[in-house]
Amino acid sequence: MSFGSDNMAPVSDRVMQAIVDANGGPARSYGADEWTNRATDALETLFETRCSAFFVATGTAANTLGLAAVTPPWGVTVCHEVSHIRTDECGAHGLQTGGAQLLTLAGDGGKLDAPDLDKILGAYDFEDVHHPRPTSISISQLTEVGCRYDVSEIAAISKIAKRHGMALHMDGARFANAVAAAGCTPAEMSWKAGVDILSFGGTKNGCLALEAIIVFRDTAAIDDRAVGDLARRRMRAGQLLSKGRFLGAQLLSYLEDGHWLTLAGHANSMAAELARILTGSGRARLAWPVGGNEVFAILSRSDQARLAGAGITAFEWRDAPLNDPPAADETLLRFVCSFATSQDDVARVAAILS
Amino acid sequence: MSFGSDNMAPVSDRVMQAIVDANGGPARSYGADEWTNRATDALETLFETRCSAFFVATGTAANTLGLAAVTPPWGVTVCHEVSHIRTDECGAHGLQTGGAQLLTLAGDGGKLDAPDLDKILGAYDFEDVHHPRPTSISISQLTEVGCRYDVSEIAAISKIAKRHGMALHMDGARFANAVAAAGCTPAEMSWKAGVDILSFGGTKNGCLALEAIIVFRDTAAIDDRAVGDLARRRMRAGQLLSKGRFLGAQLLSYLEDGHWLTLAGHANSMAAELARILTGSGRARLAWPVGGNEVFAILSRSDQARLAGAGITAFEWRDAPLNDPPAADETLLRFVCSFATSQDDVARVAAILS
Amino acid sequence: MSFGSDNMAPVSDRVMQAIVDANGGPARSYGADEWTNRATDALETLFETRCSAFFVATGTAANTLGLAAVTPPWGVTVCHEVSHIRTDECGAHGLQTGGAQLLTLAGDGGKLDAPDLDKILGAYDFEDVHHPRPTSISISQLTEVGCRYDVSEIAAISKIAKRHGMALHMDGARFANAVAAAGCTPAEMSWKAGVDILSFGGTKNGCLALEAIIVFRDTAAIDDRAVGDLARRRMRAGQLLSKGRFLGAQLLSYLEDGHWLTLAGHANSMAAELARILTGSGRARLAWPVGGNEVFAILSRSDQARLAGAGITAFEWRDAPLNDPPAADETLLRFVCSFATSQDDVARVAAILS
Amino acid sequence: MSFGSDNMAPVSDRVMQAIVDANGGPARSYGADEWTNRATDALETLFETRCSAFFVATGTAANTLGLAAVTPPWGVTVCHEVSHIRTDECGAHGLQTGGAQLLTLAGDGGKLDAPDLDKILGAYDFEDVHHPRPTSISISQLTEVGCRYDVSEIAAISKIAKRHGMALHMDGARFANAVAAAGCTPAEMSWKAGVDILSFGGTKNGCLALEAIIVFRDTAAIDDRAVGDLARRRMRAGQLLSKGRFLGAQLLSYLEDGHWLTLAGHANSMAAELARILTGSGRARLAWPVGGNEVFAILSRSDQARLAGAGITAFEWRDAPLNDPPAADETLLRFVCSFATSQDDVARVAAILS
Repeated sequence: MSFGSDNMAPVSDRVMQAIVDANGGPARSYGADEWTNRATDALETLFETRCSAFFVATGTAANTLGLAAVTPPWGVTVCHEVSHIRTDECGAHGLQTGGAQLLTLAGDGGKLDAPDLDKILGAYDFEDVHHPRPTSISISQLTEVGCRYDVSEIAAISKIAKRHGMALHMDGARFANAVAAAGCTPAEMSWKAGVDILSFGGTKNGCLALEAIIVFRDTAAIDDRAVGDLARRRMRAGQLLSKGRFLGAQLLSYLEDGHWLTLAGHANSMAAELARILTGSGRARLAWPVGGNEVFAILSRSDQARLAGAGITAFEWRDAPLNDPPAADETLLRFVCSFATSQDDVARVAAILS
Repeated sequence: MSFGSDNMAPVSDRVMQAIVDANGGPARSYGADEWTNRATDALETLFETRCSAFFVATGTAANTLGLAAVTPPWGVTVCHEVSHIRTDECGAHGLQTGGAQLLTLAGDGGKLDAPDLDKILGAYDFEDVHHPRPTSISISQLTEVGCRYDVSEIAAISKIAKRHGMALHMDGARFANAVAAAGCTPAEMSWKAGVDILSFGGTKNGCLALEAIIVFRDTAAIDDRAVGDLARRRMRAGQLLSKGRFLGAQLLSYLEDGHWLTLAGHANSMAAELARILTGSGRARLAWPVGGNEVFAILSRSDQARLAGAGITAFEWRDAPLNDPPAADETLLRFVCSFATSQDDVARVAAILS
Repeated sequence: MSFGSDNMAPVSDRVMQAIVDANGGPARSYGADEWTNRATDALETLFETRCSAFFVATGTAANTLGLAAVTPPWGVTVCHEVSHIRTDECGAHGLQTGGAQLLTLAGDGGKLDAPDLDKILGAYDFEDVHHPRPTSISISQLTEVGCRYDVSEIAAISKIAKRHGMALHMDGARFANAVAAAGCTPAEMSWKAGVDILSFGGTKNGCLALEAIIVFRDTAAIDDRAVGDLARRRMRAGQLLSKGRFLGAQLLSYLEDGHWLTLAGHANSMAAELARILTGSGRARLAWPVGGNEVFAILSRSDQARLAGAGITAFEWRDAPLNDPPAADETLLRFVCSFATSQDDVARVAAILS
Repeated sequence: MSFGSDNMAPVSDRVMQAIVDANGGPARSYGADEWTNRATDALETLFETRCSAFFVATGTAANTLGLAAVTPPWGVTVCHEVSHIRTDECGAHGLQTGGAQLLTLAGDGGKLDAPDLDKILGAYDFEDVHHPRPTSISISQLTEVGCRYDVSEIAAISKIAKRHGMALHMDGARFANAVAAAGCTPAEMSWKAGVDILSFGGTKNGCLALEAIIVFRDTAAIDDRAVGDLARRRMRAGQLLSKGRFLGAQLLSYLEDGHWLTLAGHANSMAAELARILTGSGRARLAWPVGGNEVFAILSRSDQARLAGAGITAFEWRDAPLNDPPAADETLLRFVCSFATSQDDVARVAAILS
């Protein structure tokens, strides 16, 4: 049983069935098919606003193509020091932007701190040609350590971004988990809070390989040409799939009947239950609050060994600074729940640790 | 009914079933799964040699990542003036190589002509730092106009490449059709003829989205570090799919029982039949010999209108020079057959034109 | 004595004196000095229009930074197959544009042929995202084989460029020689003929290291942001010299009293004289008409040996196709005259060949 | 009178005379001239080891081309958070490396702290393809805030670099000042301490525009091909000057008779005197120890106004964190001395503040 990653989960049955169902006769290629068109419409309905959507196969592609639209080669994307675009995409940001920099900030729970951000950008000389120019801010929802930005926190960051003419990007690989946990609407969590571009993730939450780059056309601080160019960027990155119907079909089934939130809500509730078990046993403490479907817990190395011995996968986490770090005989483990995590899986952890 | 592109075809039932079957419990992510491992083994068996294989979702990614492994930013890839990497990948070669150039040559049927190539490279000053340095040659099998290189033609080009320390890349988006038509082994068509890197295509021939970059480790003129770096390049390009099992599963089912050649052989025979019909009617002539599953035929605009009126899709082709070009009242159409093209589809064309 | 290249010539005395004279006390750095400001004013006076000028140290930098302003990474620059940006800048165009392509055309004398250009661009599908998008045309004045575009030829190319929303760039490494030979004004040779960006060369014509990227602000098909970004591009390319006063000083002295045209006119007259000698002797024929300061002559290998034996440097030229190519016992030599070429130098060639 | 920057100083008389003297007849272009050859020899003599040297016109070019030789596109250069390559080169590192990242660390006085570095790199997973790979460390000598690494500090950093297979680069824009102040040999300050590549600066210390990228061939952790490729990188960056003799001539005169150290020693002594005056007056305190020719002093805003009113240029410095930052009525000023700073200049400051 695996709490290793939501990437290790399979595809939800509904999504898989939609893929199978899309496999009829011929269909127009490269995204000109009807599934893709309907999928964009579905996103506009979901987000209650006009969207340009670009479907791609990986989160790395979604994040870095989206950021490239608002970050010139001499630009800077401000992000948390523990963010996927910095630590886990092998420098894809540099590839797609043509060499732009990352300016990394610390912050509790993987979150950018608005006052810190304000101070640093307030002191930055945006006009001096010697300095690379900050043009975008990227935040992750959920963060790399499973925390969740409140809508008000996002709005505060967006306000700073706009003050400096910068775009706000959200890496929403786990956007579904964030929305399900916050109980707000997708619109409230994104453009209404000032997000300009969203990587809307599907893969970690039951899709096979589907992420959408969404530009909120009526509100985004992005010019039309840059949005149009995104179609070129996607093609050039080898991310325009020829049999695009299978991406559209994934998205349609993912959104239908709120399936995406059902999946994410289940994963979140499994994580909440797991957190209760871990802390309730007195044998573990949480490193950060649980914002969605991930539990970062500090427990003893002997408990770690017992879990591993019982075939339970959970990865050690070493990348983020902690106020109360593990002692020498402790470790920090990341447990990720997915739509496929069962009550039995969680109960099994309880049994092992009790 | 569509002869528009093999990209417009669906997924073969066997391949789709394999995707469904892979959708069990958890699996290791990012290509560390068992399907991916077995798929590499299967390629080594098929090609009768040691391979490094990197699975990606698109042909553009396969071609340009493979070429990037053998083309530094100041390098040059020599290719035909009508080649996918030049005309149809939106400059992806420039992205993945970091800005390398293409040097394009003419040649009948979309094929590089070995004597021409020899002459041009023989006169090139490879050492002068002012000149970008030719480091790779890329050929397409089938070519963009549906022709097929003989094994001996490939070997002649490879010999020239090796004389100049250059690598030979093959864009094998339709490698299956070429092998099926030539009746040789995959090894004979690739490394035994001196190909160093192959984009082994699956998508156009019945897969959902699967291409493999194959480096022939025992013979390729590529150093080990460059091969290792390909794993970084793929990740950085956003082409390392998290649920990699579904790529591995596609490949395994694609190769099993010679399924790939069955699919390609069928497409080829439909194309041969179509060519017979078109030319036999005396109403069309072939622009180029049919090398696999594509028929480029010159016919009257009135016949074009009749086909279109009957709902038959075939695209006009304008990109390549012809010795005997269409007259003013004629046009050049590309008919692409796929595994899904039926006898009825072909018969329908015959009926319309008769 | 060297007819090897105008790059092998020294610096004109006036220009060198200006460098020495600028070497007084402190001056503002990075182009904020008074020399640089006055140099831009001087260019506006010379060209009779509002200019944005960016001084750099090399022609490669000038060409490729200027083109980068009008060529996105997925763009294409159309140029002659024998052009400096393609053959002699080691792929700098790919570096500065972030990977854009070159589309090369043939044409007599190194010149783009307007009807050919029109035909190719007229057939190009600019909207299909699969195709890299042609966004700029670059012509060289003089061409790589020493020919000169008439003003009307430039205007014809510009008209085609504008029809397709493309920018017209001129590599003017030998712009001075062209203007001196044509007897027109700099304005007539550039923006009045529809040139948007000009690499205005100084180095080959008596400067130490000075090229100016000039954007004609009132007429150029370039948006203001792209012009502003050029300042970032130059800095990022390491081409913003800290002691910028020495670039400004070079330009001021170069333009003062028509010094630049005096230098170029002398070089041109030496070339004309040399061409007369070579062809008048009946021992050589011109490969192309002499457009300025370069003579491309076909002569016997024995004459080549006699010249070399007498210490006269002139390089063999192998890069360009010729209607009447050298016979087996002949060769094609490029003789370049500069401001420093003397009557004696030319007479010496006459003596050797007579 | 200006303490604004050593970039605002003129060219030393000896160096200017050498430029004038090199301006004789023809010379081979693009660095094939005798001055350039002799300049490389002179560097080998100075550094007591075999060197590959590449002369360029700016420090930005030197730093980023050198780093590009040891940093692949998916690589990471570790550097101080206040370093020129991060804050003042407009992202040139991203351009020349093809998009590599910077990993920035804090540290007193602009210096990397070896134990911190060791800890961070010790915990880094170099093999995981998701993570960009740290392949180079860059330190600045002097640092951006005028401090100087001891030879032993450099050696400690180099030891860590080598443990991880990384190259050590030194931004030596003020290497002359560092050597003059430390009283060691250039070899001791560079390759003997484990530096692999050095940007050897001339421009800030009396040259017109001259920086050398030096690779220490017998000791550098760089493979031969990467060194050879540097010649291509330089050309492609537009940094191979055609009239290269004037770079070679600068370097030769700069090194002759220890001229470079005479210039730097004078600048250092002026800075030492200035620091004494500022602190001795009790009206200012040093922000950091003076390592060479720069004084960072905290003084009252009223004193700042008095200096400015007297025509003395010294820039406010806002980029670096301080243990004892300026109070509300104070500011931090950077005073830079150069070879051209006079006793009178320094005395004038004393007079104003007394």
